[in-house]
Amino acid sequence: MEKLIITCALTGAEVTKQNNPAVPYTAAEMATSAWEAWREGASVIHLHAREDDGTPSFRLERFAELIQAIRTKCPDVIIQVTTGGAIGMSRDERLTPVALNPEMATLDCGTLNFGGDDIFVNTENDIKYMGAALESRGIQKELECFEKGHVDTVLRLVRQGFLHHPLHFSFVLGVNGGMTGEQRDLLFLKDSIPPGSTYSVAGIGRFEFPLAETAILNGGHVRVGLEDNIFLEKGVLAKSNGELVRKVAEMAHRHQREIATPAEARAILGMEKKHD
Amino acid sequence: MEKLIITCALTGAEVTKQNNPAVPYTAAEMATSAWEAWREGASVIHLHAREDDGTPSFRLERFAELIQAIRTKCPDVIIQVTTGGAIGMSRDERLTPVALNPEMATLDCGTLNFGGDDIFVNTENDIKYMGAALESRGIQKELECFEKGHVDTVLRLVRQGFLHHPLHFSFVLGVNGGMTGEQRDLLFLKDSIPPGSTYSVAGIGRFEFPLAETAILNGGHVRVGLEDNIFLEKGVLAKSNGELVRKVAEMAHRHQREIATPAEARAILGMEKKHD
Amino acid sequence: MEKLIITCALTGAEVTKQNNPAVPYTAAEMATSAWEAWREGASVIHLHAREDDGTPSFRLERFAELIQAIRTKCPDVIIQVTTGGAIGMSRDERLTPVALNPEMATLDCGTLNFGGDDIFVNTENDIKYMGAALESRGIQKELECFEKGHVDTVLRLVRQGFLHHPLHFSFVLGVNGGMTGEQRDLLFLKDSIPPGSTYSVAGIGRFEFPLAETAILNGGHVRVGLEDNIFLEKGVLAKSNGELVRKVAEMAHRHQREIATPAEARAILGMEKKHD
Amino acid sequence: MEKLIITCALTGAEVTKQNNPAVPYTAAEMATSAWEAWREGASVIHLHAREDDGTPSFRLERFAELIQAIRTKCPDVIIQVTTGGAIGMSRDERLTPVALNPEMATLDCGTLNFGGDDIFVNTENDIKYMGAALESRGIQKELECFEKGHVDTVLRLVRQGFLHHPLHFSFVLGVNGGMTGEQRDLLFLKDSIPPGSTYSVAGIGRFEFPLAETAILNGGHVRVGLEDNIFLEKGVLAKSNGELVRKVAEMAHRHQREIATPAEARAILGMEKKHD
Repeated sequence: MEKLIITCALTGAEVTKQNNPAVPYTAAEMATSAWEAWREGASVIHLHAREDDGTPSFRLERFAELIQAIRTKCPDVIIQVTTGGAIGMSRDERLTPVALNPEMATLDCGTLNFGGDDIFVNTENDIKYMGAALESRGIQKELECFEKGHVDTVLRLVRQGFLHHPLHFSFVLGVNGGMTGEQRDLLFLKDSIPPGSTYSVAGIGRFEFPLAETAILNGGHVRVGLEDNIFLEKGVLAKSNGELVRKVAEMAHRHQREIATPAEARAILGMEKKHD
Repeated sequence: MEKLIITCALTGAEVTKQNNPAVPYTAAEMATSAWEAWREGASVIHLHAREDDGTPSFRLERFAELIQAIRTKCPDVIIQVTTGGAIGMSRDERLTPVALNPEMATLDCGTLNFGGDDIFVNTENDIKYMGAALESRGIQKELECFEKGHVDTVLRLVRQGFLHHPLHFSFVLGVNGGMTGEQRDLLFLKDSIPPGSTYSVAGIGRFEFPLAETAILNGGHVRVGLEDNIFLEKGVLAKSNGELVRKVAEMAHRHQREIATPAEARAILGMEKKHD
Repeated sequence: MEKLIITCALTGAEVTKQNNPAVPYTAAEMATSAWEAWREGASVIHLHAREDDGTPSFRLERFAELIQAIRTKCPDVIIQVTTGGAIGMSRDERLTPVALNPEMATLDCGTLNFGGDDIFVNTENDIKYMGAALESRGIQKELECFEKGHVDTVLRLVRQGFLHHPLHFSFVLGVNGGMTGEQRDLLFLKDSIPPGSTYSVAGIGRFEFPLAETAILNGGHVRVGLEDNIFLEKGVLAKSNGELVRKVAEMAHRHQREIATPAEARAILGMEKKHD
Repeated sequence: MEKLIITCALTGAEVTKQNNPAVPYTAAEMATSAWEAWREGASVIHLHAREDDGTPSFRLERFAELIQAIRTKCPDVIIQVTTGGAIGMSRDERLTPVALNPEMATLDCGTLNFGGDDIFVNTENDIKYMGAALESRGIQKELECFEKGHVDTVLRLVRQGFLHHPLHFSFVLGVNGGMTGEQRDLLFLKDSIPPGSTYSVAGIGRFEFPLAETAILNGGHVRVGLEDNIFLEKGVLAKSNGELVRKVAEMAHRHQREIATPAEARAILGMEKKHD
């Protein structure tokens, strides 16, 4: 089986040091956390920006500063910026970090509830617009799908010529409002993508490790990190992003699946090496 | 196997007489169309209102008029009003027809794209509010799910005490933005609902009849009608809602599944008979 | 979607004229039945031999006679001989018709119950031996699988180098003792074969047409015929093999799937044209 | 979720002390191994007999001796005897240990290849005969299924009145000749059994722990033991049956699933307590 690509979602936009003191905010913390994740086996760093006080940040300069800090400590790791933005932001605001020409960026592929009155908005026109922005710059898309219908949207936009191969899906499962994270959910999604495409799973909260194991056993890749889950096991806070990555690496080891280096990850995903 | 409940979606809010001259607008047309559907085997009429010129209507008086017209021709049929509303409408506006105490009403269980810039908004709070409105009046809910995550939302809201049994799901498949309508999609959803609950499928466009057959063979129920699909077969416009219902009834006959009367449908769905 | 290959299983070894007078026994009846099937859309004829009185036959001369009779009426149709044999026969006896160098032959890929005290025996060594016999002669294998484990056996024997691509599976479903023929069974099997392989389904008895439709909608191919099912619909005996094939061809037409000619079937299956 | 029933398959008929020195042969070894398994969480002991030199045994006296030895150390554990027998044995020979009126016994529900020239024979008539023998004595059946078609056979025999509820299935996956042990295989089987029935999984070899985890997460029960798998992890021989059980118990703990005592297991399976 293909080597395993582990992506580490360092910080996200919602968890705080109150939830888990290991959540990184500053450039130094981000760089250290990325380095620890890389050392344990992560080949991709999924990046949201925060200001030093933890506030979610969408400033270009902040993204640049964080990327530079991570690059200094992890010269070869793949940096994947979020384009998820925040409620109410325009497409172009969400594309801010793309101006830095990262190797990789997420593309959210559908609209869904996020609990209460909240909606995570990604209209079909948003997807086309932001997808074109990524593709025109040669940035590898990570196609975030929270529902089966998001996958179907991607496949339709590919047929219609709005999105193009290579297709790398990220199934984000277990969000209130989206598909839950039972193993059968992941296996159903895995069987829904075309031959030649790749997928990763991000299980939210208690779904993180069971889904990681399912992906490891079924040819998928894995995203973990404090953004998705702050516990190493029930009631035990993770001490670092590295610790979460290590747990996945150990699982992979138990199942005789080797861990991809950043260079190997690029090959698996069909990416050209480029610099941020 | 349980008898088959056929629901007929007479008119919806989007198709017009330009698309298919059989689309009913007036009270007389609605009543005739409902009667033809009932005669061919429909036990439930899914009702959107139109004004005489075809404009979608949300006026209480119009719903009252249409229900009365249908009741006159089909005294026993189950009338299921839509609460789907239109983009931009408030919860209470969407609940307008519920004031008429119909036997049954739809409850949309999640938010998704509807193509282009459009979003069909049903936040978690919307679902709770509108679900409570239906339940407090003893109106049978038809839980419309366009995605697996909508089913998961329903099950969570049941666990949390916001929605209650009996659970009757309607899988609306093949909408651009939602789950597509392959047979495996329906079978996956069918395996996702708890024992004791029931389901119906509404396949949109070309998915209508293949999914109807899948449901017939797998213990589900079926919705058809000009709202969902205007063709009897490829390139051949349906002459009436009745003709679409007949095609499903013939399928059921071929597979030795009997058709439920309205009284039998009430028993299958666990409804008390009540009057509009 | 790829064009549809329809295989007609003319006669088998068990049904008799007492069950349905249209079951062919003689060379003339076989040839006529094959011709009618071909005319209605069959590109492959699945052939068991019978003597003139209906007794199952495994004589080389009888197979030769039947093939010649069919060839005369249908010069281009693909003839697929059975190697299923009868209980108690040796591998080499079962391989008798293979000596005639047909274009195609079945290879049964596992052992299972056939009701009562009967077992359909195909040990792993049988599969290797008979598979090698077919491959060494350049005869296209139709991999008959009655269970998921039979598919797994094939894939293992491919990995071990005992069987080779192209892989064309035939899922025979609904036999007492094997996997039943629900739609979910077929979809599960379909998702179990590797990209680049092809499959056909043979639904036994009442499963014939529902599974045919499922295959048509899901990129598979279809086998029908009096061997598998003698009824056109419940309680109505099929008048001929052609009538069963026509019903499938009409289904395909309704779903806009075109029917493959024998030449097109060869291309789809990756076969070289050769003569019997 | 229901508490987890762990069954320990102590020894089987094939593995030897050459494979793993912890494989028990003598009554004392069996009793100690059963006790260690019970102490770590096993509530059911799946029992094959061996003579002191390791030869598989089918002597009534030997079964009696082993059961007594186990009972002495584990008064409350559920003892489940095998009726699998050996190739060439008659039904009645296979039923030998049933004469001791154990609480539970396996019933193999279909015929399949076991590699090379071997077939594990369980004809439909065998299943009826042996099933009746168990039911007439009030012995709880564990329905061993190596294929989906075996489940279908059970369900048919229930419909026909040959087998009766409660239905407790054991999916034995990963045998060469049967269904392999991917997670999707287990989830498919789990969705194939009727509401109200229970299931356990026995993953053979490398499938043992991944399938155990899948069952834990999906409401199933688990069988482990040296009969099925001799390794604690790749390249590391298990030191005892207890160690294999502990690994499963730890998994269950990580997933917040409690372990059933023998008394709780009886309640879950719908068994009456009785004495061997």
